[in-house]
Amino acid sequence: MNDLFLRACKRQPVERTPVWIMRQAGRYLPEYRALRSRSDFLTMVRTPELAAEVTVQPVELIGVDAAIIFSDILVVPEAMGLGFEMEESKGPRFPRTVRTRHDVGALRVPDPMKKLRYVVDAIELTKRALRGRVPLIGFSGSPWTLATYMVEGGGSRDYQHVMRMMLDDPETLRELIDKLTESVRMYLEAQLAAGADALQIFDTWAGVLPPDHFRKWSLEPIFNIVSRLHRDGQPVIVFCKGANHALRDIAQTGADVVGVDWAVDLADVRALIGDRVAVQGNLSPSFLYGSPGCIRREVRAILAKYGAGEGHVFNLGHGVFPDVPVDHVRAMVDAVKEESGVFHRG
Amino acid sequence: MNDLFLRACKRQPVERTPVWIMRQAGRYLPEYRALRSRSDFLTMVRTPELAAEVTVQPVELIGVDAAIIFSDILVVPEAMGLGFEMEESKGPRFPRTVRTRHDVGALRVPDPMKKLRYVVDAIELTKRALRGRVPLIGFSGSPWTLATYMVEGGGSRDYQHVMRMMLDDPETLRELIDKLTESVRMYLEAQLAAGADALQIFDTWAGVLPPDHFRKWSLEPIFNIVSRLHRDGQPVIVFCKGANHALRDIAQTGADVVGVDWAVDLADVRALIGDRVAVQGNLSPSFLYGSPGCIRREVRAILAKYGAGEGHVFNLGHGVFPDVPVDHVRAMVDAVKEESGVFHRG
Repeated sequence: MNDLFLRACKRQPVERTPVWIMRQAGRYLPEYRALRSRSDFLTMVRTPELAAEVTVQPVELIGVDAAIIFSDILVVPEAMGLGFEMEESKGPRFPRTVRTRHDVGALRVPDPMKKLRYVVDAIELTKRALRGRVPLIGFSGSPWTLATYMVEGGGSRDYQHVMRMMLDDPETLRELIDKLTESVRMYLEAQLAAGADALQIFDTWAGVLPPDHFRKWSLEPIFNIVSRLHRDGQPVIVFCKGANHALRDIAQTGADVVGVDWAVDLADVRALIGDRVAVQGNLSPSFLYGSPGCIRREVRAILAKYGAGEGHVFNLGHGVFPDVPVDHVRAMVDAVKEESGVFHRG
Repeated sequence: MNDLFLRACKRQPVERTPVWIMRQAGRYLPEYRALRSRSDFLTMVRTPELAAEVTVQPVELIGVDAAIIFSDILVVPEAMGLGFEMEESKGPRFPRTVRTRHDVGALRVPDPMKKLRYVVDAIELTKRALRGRVPLIGFSGSPWTLATYMVEGGGSRDYQHVMRMMLDDPETLRELIDKLTESVRMYLEAQLAAGADALQIFDTWAGVLPPDHFRKWSLEPIFNIVSRLHRDGQPVIVFCKGANHALRDIAQTGADVVGVDWAVDLADVRALIGDRVAVQGNLSPSFLYGSPGCIRREVRAILAKYGAGEGHVFNLGHGVFPDVPVDHVRAMVDAVKEESGVFHRG
């Protein structure tokens, strides 16, 4: 197996820096769009054969060093009893919201082998389809990020309902977060059991919270999940977008790798936490609109920021945009492969 | 005059922490909505009597310690030759965009006494209406933030056009930024001449840029503006939203005050730059959806984070949301006034 990614996660020696891309199985790939034109998004997520097929696409078409199972973080709330709709133009929406103690009480902690079996099956199928070429990453949203979606009923600009719950009714939010923590933990365990070689926890809405509230409502639940996972060496990546104020704390959740967005200097990050964890990132996804030559220059700059030695997993600082030219994505991956060797000799 | 705000900006002793609110002249105020129902947004911006009236409203109705002239950062691009539309639901839009060297070449550096005279007049009118009760803040968008709007043609999710220009055609972006730098500088000079007691530069899209690009494209132009302003003691506030990675650099632009969003610990900020500048912030605007009691608790937490001593201007970490209850805004202002005295005795 190409295990560059797993070795980098553990800060072990590699010949070059590994690279994968958040949302790499997605619309920027013509081959994805071809499949997608015949099935809607949720059908693809819920059909293991389709999920496995698009999961493998970027490995074969782009040459990334890890696959990540094609799914959505909102499958967990859906399995807990909320509906789930996907309007392509507007992003995900829940037809119902979770606003009261009664709403939270009605949510179940789902048995992933029943309610999320399609993800488990997709992971098993994908592992076979990958034939050991690269590791497979499983993932989940963080409890805080899932709670935000569930309380707001979708994306939000002002987060008014979840903030009101946090401030005025913290017991209800606590109950919701606790149920989510248990649900996410069991879901990630099931993904490990199905063969996932690594896990990533996406805390997409970390940046909504001021530091103290972030520690309490987002980071503690993540710590509770990571510390209780039964792992056999599989690394865990924790990515709290917009929480660069708390990198030292994130590095102490038990994560092997801390993901960072583009709004931070990778040399600073390494100096702060590089003795404890590997670091994943951090090219701006907007930079993929630049020409391949510029992309190579920016890739080189990021590799140089991290500098010589182990513990860097190259990635974007957020998911790849759907309208980026596929050649630009390939240019990024090629640049990482061709430019990073020099940082790993000696 | 209540000069608490000006003294805090200069880190001089105050009896209590001053407070004002970004977008304090806005839709959360019933009295604003009453005026707004009779004139559209741009008419209000362009009619000095109306602009002055809504500028004074939060001083009288909410009790803030500073007024900020009612206007919009996009009046500068408009004065440079772009049109400007405001769709209330969608935010600002330019009917034309700036994408090519030719587009940039067609832009004029406007004489503010001609093209932005309505702002100058509004400041003079407002100064008279305020009758010395509180200082009046003038403002502008930063060159980078204005350039982003002009190139994208409005708000953006992916910033693809401005990023492409930055990477593939930096000479054109440089020309645009240089024109904006000169335009903003002259505009701010005119506001000072009209009687503005302080200035704020809003770099709303600072967080879009990785650190090195932020320094080059956003911070250098801000430095070039601040260092060349002819001031008679009027403080300058620089607020680069999402650029907390660069607080030390922002503190060296010549700003008297550095604004920060909510995603940073105010004690950390003070430790980092508090010996050089005052700090403005940093309650999350979403927290105003909480109850007045909770708002008071969060206000107290922020005051305690900054701690005893001078140099704190209380504000939100971003503009107030239009649907926040006015009583909650008032609760925040009252809490700052009542809870902050203890940090200024001694």
